[in-house]
Amino acid sequence: MNTPITPVTPPVRSTAMSLNSFRGGDGIDPETGRLLKRRADVLGPTYHLFYERPLNLVRGDGAYVYDVDGVEFLDMYNNIPGVGHCNPRVADVVHRQMLTLNTHTRYLHTAILDYGERLLATMPDSVHHMLLTCSGSEANDLAIRIVQHRAGGRGIIVTENAYHGSTDVSAAVSPSISGGVTAGNGWVRTVSAPDPYREGYDAAGPRFAADVERAIAELEADGTGFAGFLADMVLSTDGVIADPTPFFADVERVVHNAGGSFIADEVQSGFGRLGGGMWGFARHGLRPDIVTMGKPMGNGFPIAGLVANHELLADFGRDVTYFNTFAGSPAAVAAATAVLDEIEQRELIAHAADLGARLLDGMKSLAGTDPFIGEVRGAGLFTSVEYVTDLDSKTPNASRAADVIREMRERGVLISSTGTYANSLKVRPPLVIDQKGIDRYLETFEIVSRNH
Amino acid sequence: MNTPITPVTPPVRSTAMSLNSFRGGDGIDPETGRLLKRRADVLGPTYHLFYERPLNLVRGDGAYVYDVDGVEFLDMYNNIPGVGHCNPRVADVVHRQMLTLNTHTRYLHTAILDYGERLLATMPDSVHHMLLTCSGSEANDLAIRIVQHRAGGRGIIVTENAYHGSTDVSAAVSPSISGGVTAGNGWVRTVSAPDPYREGYDAAGPRFAADVERAIAELEADGTGFAGFLADMVLSTDGVIADPTPFFADVERVVHNAGGSFIADEVQSGFGRLGGGMWGFARHGLRPDIVTMGKPMGNGFPIAGLVANHELLADFGRDVTYFNTFAGSPAAVAAATAVLDEIEQRELIAHAADLGARLLDGMKSLAGTDPFIGEVRGAGLFTSVEYVTDLDSKTPNASRAADVIREMRERGVLISSTGTYANSLKVRPPLVIDQKGIDRYLETFEIVSRNH
Repeated sequence: MNTPITPVTPPVRSTAMSLNSFRGGDGIDPETGRLLKRRADVLGPTYHLFYERPLNLVRGDGAYVYDVDGVEFLDMYNNIPGVGHCNPRVADVVHRQMLTLNTHTRYLHTAILDYGERLLATMPDSVHHMLLTCSGSEANDLAIRIVQHRAGGRGIIVTENAYHGSTDVSAAVSPSISGGVTAGNGWVRTVSAPDPYREGYDAAGPRFAADVERAIAELEADGTGFAGFLADMVLSTDGVIADPTPFFADVERVVHNAGGSFIADEVQSGFGRLGGGMWGFARHGLRPDIVTMGKPMGNGFPIAGLVANHELLADFGRDVTYFNTFAGSPAAVAAATAVLDEIEQRELIAHAADLGARLLDGMKSLAGTDPFIGEVRGAGLFTSVEYVTDLDSKTPNASRAADVIREMRERGVLISSTGTYANSLKVRPPLVIDQKGIDRYLETFEIVSRNH
Repeated sequence: MNTPITPVTPPVRSTAMSLNSFRGGDGIDPETGRLLKRRADVLGPTYHLFYERPLNLVRGDGAYVYDVDGVEFLDMYNNIPGVGHCNPRVADVVHRQMLTLNTHTRYLHTAILDYGERLLATMPDSVHHMLLTCSGSEANDLAIRIVQHRAGGRGIIVTENAYHGSTDVSAAVSPSISGGVTAGNGWVRTVSAPDPYREGYDAAGPRFAADVERAIAELEADGTGFAGFLADMVLSTDGVIADPTPFFADVERVVHNAGGSFIADEVQSGFGRLGGGMWGFARHGLRPDIVTMGKPMGNGFPIAGLVANHELLADFGRDVTYFNTFAGSPAAVAAATAVLDEIEQRELIAHAADLGARLLDGMKSLAGTDPFIGEVRGAGLFTSVEYVTDLDSKTPNASRAADVIREMRERGVLISSTGTYANSLKVRPPLVIDQKGIDRYLETFEIVSRNH
């Protein structure tokens, strides 16, 4: 099983996005050049831009964005504006709330309770309360604090190319942004994500669970102790691994048998993105102890959070005072409430399932036009195309993915790369995209696949 | 010098706010009771409320908030709405931007550069670039990552009752929320904040610097190594220690001599709060390596960040990919820009200095009406009253502070407590408060001071 990848030339392990980052160079117009100079001065050396020819965007609308010259781009990448760029309902309720009252959670306010009740109604009875934060990073950071506090032991298990955030602790469990190195001072263990394309669809799940079981045993044996398992419910940075369900189920059993907590990271996969339901973990029939969420939660207004088991929170709250200044403010809750309203009233989950199926089918039917497409996969409106050097060796082909992304951008369609070797496309439009948008994407993808 | 506090009965060390937290009990009306029940169900055991009779707020305007029954409260506590509750300029620019474009920093956008240039123009030339985050917690978390990365060693020195945030790492340097226990696994050292009221105004600064020097030596000796010193520039949770300036200057020299970084936390003290300038560190004539900021930065729209030295960021950026999804979005930057516009055009820094002086003078002149007032202190519109059991022993008197806070709330004025023993008032209104508001506060404070 678990066939090792044995490429002719070993693929370079990539930090997230690096193959789709601007690196300086030719073909930059003078205005962009001036902005790049100012950006280097003001923002310094840690900020990165998408694309060899960076985009200077000035307007957004639904699934489309427009640059300073009025050029329209179909956004097949951004999942934050799930209910559409510049959704007027979200903007209007935020405006109204900012003119009415916007303070913190140490005063009573009804809206956060209304929202929490709606959110918890979408969850299994393994979780009982909601805590709000400002970012998905803060949500995962807090989840790790909570489960480590409960367990005593500090050990957290994540996948080998996981991304869970940018705080010290959430970055420590994010080997994708550190070239595969965890910064967890010994308390982070990684396991290979399921790779059904190479391992086989039947073998991937059991192998994955066995690896988690082994990692738990190692953590217990070396005295670190085991606190919990944390995974993105669509394994986005591991290459968008949505199937076969329920490959997470055995892992959950192993984690619970060892007395650990199962944290479902829905920051990318949540709020209907995968079609068929609100949450990715539900596709696997899980009963997580904590579910973290973020990105599309406020459609760009910063709000994130988690829902957690009562026992975990009671244990944490006994010893720790937790307060998050901006989190759960009436304006943030107004944005999040409007997002739920949009998802429900526009039936965006069914829409994501429907258009996602068309998108996936369309890409699968085009696979024959490009001999480097190894696999097309995904769920709902979170899809991916994995490129290889040839279909026999299945060697990751990152340069092919980079070429396609660049060419798509030049033809007005925005996507990006993902996966351990950055050889997979990330195709993930706002949920409100319509059939016309999907068709435009597929037409452009076909041209690029044939031409290149 | 450094006279130890030797109370008759040792004061109970308090976690932040706990003496001003709702703890259940009588006097709750039925509607509030229903909300409390829902809150316990939805938000669980980690959320806390202010006041024995919690406030159910529904509207805010300038320096005033209103509860569900229409009762007006003068807000002498909240520093997030620095330019006023429900500031229409901030609400309107956020609305306009949310209807125009709101995406992330991997596309070019002019507004973040305009904002960064304005912000950096208020800074000394020891810092060169701006990084944006969603919260002050994230800003301090990132600052610690950056200085630890540079130093190799992990040691961070903070004050004994510091508060720097709620992420795992920023909470680890926040003994105020853990009953004085740091969670830093050995890498956090605490030093007593200056206590000029007890140590003497001349002695406090040199003693403070000597303690920092000793802590650095200990970190070097035990192999932890020294990375940096981090302090709130008004030492809010240590009891609001604004004077004598420049008590931080010797610390900065000691830190730099040891090759460490000086991180000025301006999350509470920044953006004109202390009067006389934008930043608290400037009152001490410092040249910090990193300045973190947050709370009033977007007047309630979640935005925070830091400015840092180029060498520090170049070192960090070489090895670490940092990206923060919501941070630096056009809507967040629009809010922050409107806040700067308001501060400048309404001359709120001079206003804070002027009204802050009146507030401080007023409270000092009332000190004689209350035999438990040990000291009145502060800068600009960040002021404090420290209560003691008697003026000779200077024993902290938290119950007196709690009584005053409760009584002020019952009379329509919102303040809270601070300090290691929660025996000091935190009096810190929105910067836009007017003379009438200050007068109302002083009149109420006089009544409460006399009556009680």
